[in-house]
Amino acid sequence: MKIKAIFHIDESEKWDLLLANVENLLKGIDIKDSQVEIVANSKAVMHYKKDSGSNNLSLEELAKKGIIFTACNNALNSLKIEKVMLYSYVKVVPIGVKEIIEKQLEGYAYIKP
Amino acid sequence: MKIKAIFHIDESEKWDLLLANVENLLKGIDIKDSQVEIVANSKAVMHYKKDSGSNNLSLEELAKKGIIFTACNNALNSLKIEKVMLYSYVKVVPIGVKEIIEKQLEGYAYIKP
Amino acid sequence: MKIKAIFHIDESEKWDLLLANVENLLKGIDIKDSQVEIVANSKAVMHYKKDSGSNNLSLEELAKKGIIFTACNNALNSLKIEKVMLYSYVKVVPIGVKEIIEKQLEGYAYIKP
Repeated sequence: MKIKAIFHIDESEKWDLLLANVENLLKGIDIKDSQVEIVANSKAVMHYKKDSGSNNLSLEELAKKGIIFTACNNALNSLKIEKVMLYSYVKVVPIGVKEIIEKQLEGYAYIKP
Repeated sequence: MKIKAIFHIDESEKWDLLLANVENLLKGIDIKDSQVEIVANSKAVMHYKKDSGSNNLSLEELAKKGIIFTACNNALNSLKIEKVMLYSYVKVVPIGVKEIIEKQLEGYAYIKP
Repeated sequence: MKIKAIFHIDESEKWDLLLANVENLLKGIDIKDSQVEIVANSKAVMHYKKDSGSNNLSLEELAKKGIIFTACNNALNSLKIEKVMLYSYVKVVPIGVKEIIEKQLEGYAYIKP
């Protein structure tokens, strides 16, 4: 089944739950026909930092499968995080909540783990 | 008014709030013309266990009124909960987040209390 | 860009994050062509009280820009808050979750900070 979905995260401690959700979802969809994007804003963007201690292998594997990882630039600025400090596969958008709204208006479902 | 809505819960401690939301909603809609489904994943599925100490009377009354209670099978497996341990009116779906996405793509609203 | 979005809040401690989200969003949209509504239910409605210690200047400025602030009347009743105790620009709806559902069914995006 083709699906389009945004996962929203704004709390660092929700990353494990969110990634488990996404991995479960991948067992039941054809990612090649689907669009799954994770939009992080507020403190949750810290997980994208190369020196964050996050499990890059898990994120990178999901990115290779086609999951899109997005960071809010306002959040990065507030936390003084520069783009060069992020994993290379992270997409940066000016305003995270605007991305989330626009995608829903384009027909994406929304999930907040 | 006819409505279609999914309530999503993944934290056990949000059940009281969620059920209060649903009970308030029922005061303002005609449930016979509406579709209201509660999808629990992660640890929130424990509330569906017969021996959980949850208020079965409250859940069962809502189920009789037409509210659909759904559990994620991935979550049940992770927590070693078998279907026979759940209240009889609980519907089990393979992947909770997939159910949530599909329903939204069919036109359901989404609420995360 | 024209957008329509509901921000949902039911926990008092999420107000700072929610208002920061809305302020960031306003930098990227034309509010005159957009509909942005904040729906508070459960304990989050206390923030609308004139004597709550909330930053009325910030809320009022957003209200003047066109952001709609909405309170759930069920929540007000539960907390024994009367309408006269709220900031004057707060709109009261009978059932907060019904408002959230109806707006989504009218095409609004949903965000839960």
